Amino acid sequence: MDERQARAWLATAVAEARAGLAEGGIPIGAALYAPDGTLLGRGRNRRVQDGDPSMHAETAAFRAAGRQRTYRGTTMVTTLSPCWYCSGLVRQFGISRVVIGEATTFHGGHDWLAGHGVEIVVLEDPGCVAVMRAFVKDNPELWNEDIGE
Amino acid sequence: MDERQARAWLATAVAEARAGLAEGGIPIGAALYAPDGTLLGRGRNRRVQDGDPSMHAETAAFRAAGRQRTYRGTTMVTTLSPCWYCSGLVRQFGISRVVIGEATTFHGGHDWLAGHGVEIVVLEDPGCVAVMRAFVKDNPELWNEDIGE
Repeated sequence: MDERQARAWLATAVAEARAGLAEGGIPIGAALYAPDGTLLGRGRNRRVQDGDPSMHAETAAFRAAGRQRTYRGTTMVTTLSPCWYCSGLVRQFGISRVVIGEATTFHGGHDWLAGHGVEIVVLEDPGCVAVMRAFVKDNPELWNEDIGE
Repeated sequence: MDERQARAWLATAVAEARAGLAEGGIPIGAALYAPDGTLLGRGRNRRVQDGDPSMHAETAAFRAAGRQRTYRGTTMVTTLSPCWYCSGLVRQFGISRVVIGEATTFHGGHDWLAGHGVEIVVLEDPGCVAVMRAFVKDNPELWNEDIGE
């Protein structure tokens, strides 16, 4: 896909991550875009804010998009490489593409998804890396809880 | 594990599935048990009831259990073989065991989980098979929506 488009969409996920950080939450954001570029849903990790371990950024964006008949052609944009939970979501629902802010601080299941035909775009955005690196350094227990380690 | 124990735990998931069916929902239920047999959380598919595609039975039970520091030794009990989304949940959070009511009407990611060291118990309960078979026959579009097909 066009990199300028990918970076423009990433900005939505970054805004979610920043809002999460401001709330005292884990700074990961995501957004789901329709094939025509319509924003279907956006969200952020809500472990701290809602005490809800099931709401990772990607699942929150998926939830916000509501019921959809198909995810063919949609793009999940996330500030961080998706964990197995969120990678499983992408595979099960046939989301066609994942745009990833960075996969440096955490390497989830995106190679597995690529092997199953999902288009993967890793932007390695320095701002995304910096936010996560600082967060994990300052909150190692919370981060490990969020990824089950 | 002891099969009698597995069937006793399955009854909790079956009760959730039945409640979901009575509400007009997709009849899949789940429960998360602690290593000592304490029920941590239970839930059912909520696509129809809440218009929420992110709440599969397993994710609903996981959510109901709230924040946990570790899932080591826990058992996810579900009436139906877990889809990739729910299999990814099990893998990411290190849930140790999955007890499955049936894998006849739908075969999800439980072989993959077994390959990653998760203990898998498939009970092939005739009641679970009958409920899902009837539901899928009568509601093919809703079922396909729930699994992204």
